[in-house]
Amino acid sequence: MIAVLKKTATRQQIDNLTGWFEKQGLRVNESQGEFCTVLGLIGNTAGIDVDLLQGLDIIETVTRISDSFKQVNRKFQPEATVVDIGGVKIGGGNFAVIAGPSSIESEEQIMNAAMIAKVGGANILQGGTFKSRTSPYDFQGLHEEGISFLVKAGKEVGLPVVTEILSAEQLPLFDEVDALQIGARNMQNYELLRALGKSSKPVILKRGQAATVKELLMSAEYIMSEGNENIILCERGIRTYETYTKNTFDISAIPTLKELTHLPVIADPSQATGKASLVKRMAMASVVAGSDGLEMDVHPNPESAKSDGAQSLTGVQFTEVMEATNKARSIL
Amino acid sequence: MIAVLKKTATRQQIDNLTGWFEKQGLRVNESQGEFCTVLGLIGNTAGIDVDLLQGLDIIETVTRISDSFKQVNRKFQPEATVVDIGGVKIGGGNFAVIAGPSSIESEEQIMNAAMIAKVGGANILQGGTFKSRTSPYDFQGLHEEGISFLVKAGKEVGLPVVTEILSAEQLPLFDEVDALQIGARNMQNYELLRALGKSSKPVILKRGQAATVKELLMSAEYIMSEGNENIILCERGIRTYETYTKNTFDISAIPTLKELTHLPVIADPSQATGKASLVKRMAMASVVAGSDGLEMDVHPNPESAKSDGAQSLTGVQFTEVMEATNKARSIL
Amino acid sequence: MIAVLKKTATRQQIDNLTGWFEKQGLRVNESQGEFCTVLGLIGNTAGIDVDLLQGLDIIETVTRISDSFKQVNRKFQPEATVVDIGGVKIGGGNFAVIAGPSSIESEEQIMNAAMIAKVGGANILQGGTFKSRTSPYDFQGLHEEGISFLVKAGKEVGLPVVTEILSAEQLPLFDEVDALQIGARNMQNYELLRALGKSSKPVILKRGQAATVKELLMSAEYIMSEGNENIILCERGIRTYETYTKNTFDISAIPTLKELTHLPVIADPSQATGKASLVKRMAMASVVAGSDGLEMDVHPNPESAKSDGAQSLTGVQFTEVMEATNKARSIL
Amino acid sequence: MIAVLKKTATRQQIDNLTGWFEKQGLRVNESQGEFCTVLGLIGNTAGIDVDLLQGLDIIETVTRISDSFKQVNRKFQPEATVVDIGGVKIGGGNFAVIAGPSSIESEEQIMNAAMIAKVGGANILQGGTFKSRTSPYDFQGLHEEGISFLVKAGKEVGLPVVTEILSAEQLPLFDEVDALQIGARNMQNYELLRALGKSSKPVILKRGQAATVKELLMSAEYIMSEGNENIILCERGIRTYETYTKNTFDISAIPTLKELTHLPVIADPSQATGKASLVKRMAMASVVAGSDGLEMDVHPNPESAKSDGAQSLTGVQFTEVMEATNKARSIL
Repeated sequence: MIAVLKKTATRQQIDNLTGWFEKQGLRVNESQGEFCTVLGLIGNTAGIDVDLLQGLDIIETVTRISDSFKQVNRKFQPEATVVDIGGVKIGGGNFAVIAGPSSIESEEQIMNAAMIAKVGGANILQGGTFKSRTSPYDFQGLHEEGISFLVKAGKEVGLPVVTEILSAEQLPLFDEVDALQIGARNMQNYELLRALGKSSKPVILKRGQAATVKELLMSAEYIMSEGNENIILCERGIRTYETYTKNTFDISAIPTLKELTHLPVIADPSQATGKASLVKRMAMASVVAGSDGLEMDVHPNPESAKSDGAQSLTGVQFTEVMEATNKARSIL
Repeated sequence: MIAVLKKTATRQQIDNLTGWFEKQGLRVNESQGEFCTVLGLIGNTAGIDVDLLQGLDIIETVTRISDSFKQVNRKFQPEATVVDIGGVKIGGGNFAVIAGPSSIESEEQIMNAAMIAKVGGANILQGGTFKSRTSPYDFQGLHEEGISFLVKAGKEVGLPVVTEILSAEQLPLFDEVDALQIGARNMQNYELLRALGKSSKPVILKRGQAATVKELLMSAEYIMSEGNENIILCERGIRTYETYTKNTFDISAIPTLKELTHLPVIADPSQATGKASLVKRMAMASVVAGSDGLEMDVHPNPESAKSDGAQSLTGVQFTEVMEATNKARSIL
Repeated sequence: MIAVLKKTATRQQIDNLTGWFEKQGLRVNESQGEFCTVLGLIGNTAGIDVDLLQGLDIIETVTRISDSFKQVNRKFQPEATVVDIGGVKIGGGNFAVIAGPSSIESEEQIMNAAMIAKVGGANILQGGTFKSRTSPYDFQGLHEEGISFLVKAGKEVGLPVVTEILSAEQLPLFDEVDALQIGARNMQNYELLRALGKSSKPVILKRGQAATVKELLMSAEYIMSEGNENIILCERGIRTYETYTKNTFDISAIPTLKELTHLPVIADPSQATGKASLVKRMAMASVVAGSDGLEMDVHPNPESAKSDGAQSLTGVQFTEVMEATNKARSIL
Repeated sequence: MIAVLKKTATRQQIDNLTGWFEKQGLRVNESQGEFCTVLGLIGNTAGIDVDLLQGLDIIETVTRISDSFKQVNRKFQPEATVVDIGGVKIGGGNFAVIAGPSSIESEEQIMNAAMIAKVGGANILQGGTFKSRTSPYDFQGLHEEGISFLVKAGKEVGLPVVTEILSAEQLPLFDEVDALQIGARNMQNYELLRALGKSSKPVILKRGQAATVKELLMSAEYIMSEGNENIILCERGIRTYETYTKNTFDISAIPTLKELTHLPVIADPSQATGKASLVKRMAMASVVAGSDGLEMDVHPNPESAKSDGAQSLTGVQFTEVMEATNKARSIL
């Protein structure tokens, strides 16, 4: 960390600040320039509050020169992490497609959706069992029953299964599930991140609606710092002033994340756009942008879906999207 | 709910859609205009997915004519809710100030902060015990020990106490605390909302960084629909492209919320701006905008604060802010 | 336009409103439902202020059922418009690449950049002559001299040329230029839009930093309503809270615009990301998203560029990007 | 400007970079720290592209330690600028209210609006004559005729007048107008800024929808660097994801701007919220936030206004707002 002091800083003030840094366990390297004094801080600066320093009268500017994310940082682990979800690999050149309905509504529905996923060429089956809905009056999912339907459907078609978890207490319910997803609304639910960090289950971590790529990495750091390195990051659109699409798909986050971290990065074009008609183009775009995989909503009958029908693909549409995706992969 | 159908909709399509609505338990009132058909839907439309309908080929537009928030809606309960926190009333003409340190760091520190709060004229003492920090390497709070320091300090100065809760499991730890706060990052942590809905403790619900005022109300609805109506809403700034301030203080949300809901609405000018120097002006502005109270960070020694030092007021500053706040109240 | 009135609306109020609509030259079709009254407005509703109506006490909701953009609307002209820039076609299946330096700095520099563009396979040469810079102290361009260098370089390498215009008065200076660009900052400079609408020169209209896709279309409508239909729309990133990239590339705007308008749509991955290292991936993504062309910054020596050096490609990089782009085009 | 180089930077690279800086006319002060090299750049760094430097391989970080705005900077001119509009002073303790209709629609209408403004206690009359509308089919203003009505109405009630200018060419039309306004959409129309900089007329510069406070200051710098220092800055809301209000009123920009610049700062609560019902509270809030004045829309009959009716105050409402505003001023 570098602190540039104003030229008006007195010797006494500089010494006070230096003393305070040293009390925080840092070594301080002072270089006296002609028009400012620069303090180089050596040691673990993670606990130093940059905003606070910026606010001090004698400080011109403070800059972290090391990233605040460590374990997920590609600088410190250049080889790509490969995450294994029930035998399906993602990352390090392995591409996987996760498909299924936003909500599991019945055994028949998830079975049909599983068939669509399998036939279209998906590698992993997803389905919502505990739903995170804006309104308490919206369908909240089938909970435990939904999990059992999902597990059964996965076995039936031979695909590992993924579903979203909403709180640490639910963890025991997901024993037979191959991977857990943390939704955008919970990206900074640190208790949940920590709990999954102590688990060994692979985690799909979705970017929050107002989260920067660096904050997404910090949330992954929460999980990894507890011991679980089976983390997949998912770009699913951010909130902006544009309302034509449900979210604004920040596609450049894909190569950005791939550059900053060794973790696999996937994209969710269904959630990013909210419109089934845009999924094909955005799936292709994600692939050529460098995505390690895709997550998409499919439903046997989108018009009667209990959630996210407008962004769900039918069987026919999903097959078409998968063909386009495969074409896109062929040119990389 | 009103669905306007395109003039290209065939009789068969209209009948199919009408049949589907009726299967959802709604009564359908069709009015055939010259250039469109309008379906009025009567009954509980809360479960109907507007986005899905918008996506249908025959639909021109769909509009909810009733708000999706019910119990928190001022239309259905015109009298203002008064929330009582340990004997201190907020709402319905009762104004209260909540002050304390962002993090409780030691018994001495919270005691000093409590004195600052009390002397300045605050009505409620706050202090962070379980911190929600972007980095796992930042100070995470003193947890149970912090709670005991907070309770002790509150008793010492004679103020009820508030602190933030991060997950439902922590609830038993807060028995002696007078009110619980849900932070911006957890505004859509529905498991937590529901758990606090089943509790009877007053809840201060902070607006999420990317949440609309309507989403804030829907989150309050989660709590209230479980039985707890002791809810205070808090505007604390939203995330925008402007980086000069920590957040962008959406001050017009205050009168907007007051119009839409009977719940008390307070503002947090510390968090909204991230800059101690802006707190006084923004506190005054909140008051004249109609706020029922204020929440502010105070610290005996902001320069050594373990979190949010840059936005924390010293004792002298806090007293000055309170004087300005009182002046602002005098003109309403 | 559909106006849904509250059930509390009295006969007198409805008649007053109906009378007012009729005074605006509209025909009003009233259908009296059980729980609301719906007014269908027939005629040219373009001049009706939706916000104003929304604000009236008796109005529940107002919805435009026809788009406010007409001439640029694909509904009214399904065939794609093909724009011809100095013999190079864009749109309707014709793909074109526009490349050149952000600023023209000298005759030698633009000549070298033109060579890079030509050798790499660009179809059109661009170069900034009147620069739109945040600071008055930044390089503002070579103005007339820059235009002459650009025209000369274009002739030398056999490419038509494009440059940005900042105000209507400058129009006579650009006689020898093949197309004019309106930058993001001027997307709602209506005097400029109107002036170019009266010209016959092709116009590249860049999306404003805070503009929705519909506002971009309305700005195109300004040009087209004056008679010039040679308009190319350009997605170049929007402003969001994410600061890792210069802008947030709203890639789903590409298929969205293609669906809404018959005009060609291109993308500018240089401006969208601000980082040369991201251009290749984003160029490929734009292509598979359905873009009709690309605009990119190239510079013989980005490190000494007077503007936008960080996002400018060298000759070697540009050739690589073009190869990737061509691969992406091969799968469509 | 401070450039921190990575510790991997070689002597040769450092020398090259130093040489390049020197070629730009800067003096370079190198201080070699233990884990990085810091270059202090002395001289006029305004032309240096920070983004470009950030992109270089050997650069860790670059920080401007001097603001890029100079003439508008309070550091260099601590005394507040007082702008005189036809005898009415704004800034330096002088508070003024500008009121009038969004559009001038007829001589009678502006005369009635002028009366409302005068009676309510406004100091300056405004009225739109050249309108900046999203749609080319919306009312565009009465142009020259509107100006003559405005001037006449101003004389009639004894108030100086202000109206918006859309392009430099229009300047001669405004001879009799006391001040010119640059709208949000033109905040970065640099040709217009420069033209008004060469004029001596007072300028009200409104913040762009996606402009930071620093960019607003840079636009003011464009005007002032041409010689005109009669500039008033106006906060009028920014674009965010929140759609309940027309814009999001960034009230903390008021004290922020007052701190950064010596120019007067006013607020436009009509445009910021788009809702007449919110204007009173927001006007009061602006005053206590430190605003030097207010700009508000008034209309004799908002329901029939040709633009912005929903945010326009009637005579009765305006008088009420002015009383509230005066109360707010009384406590400062």
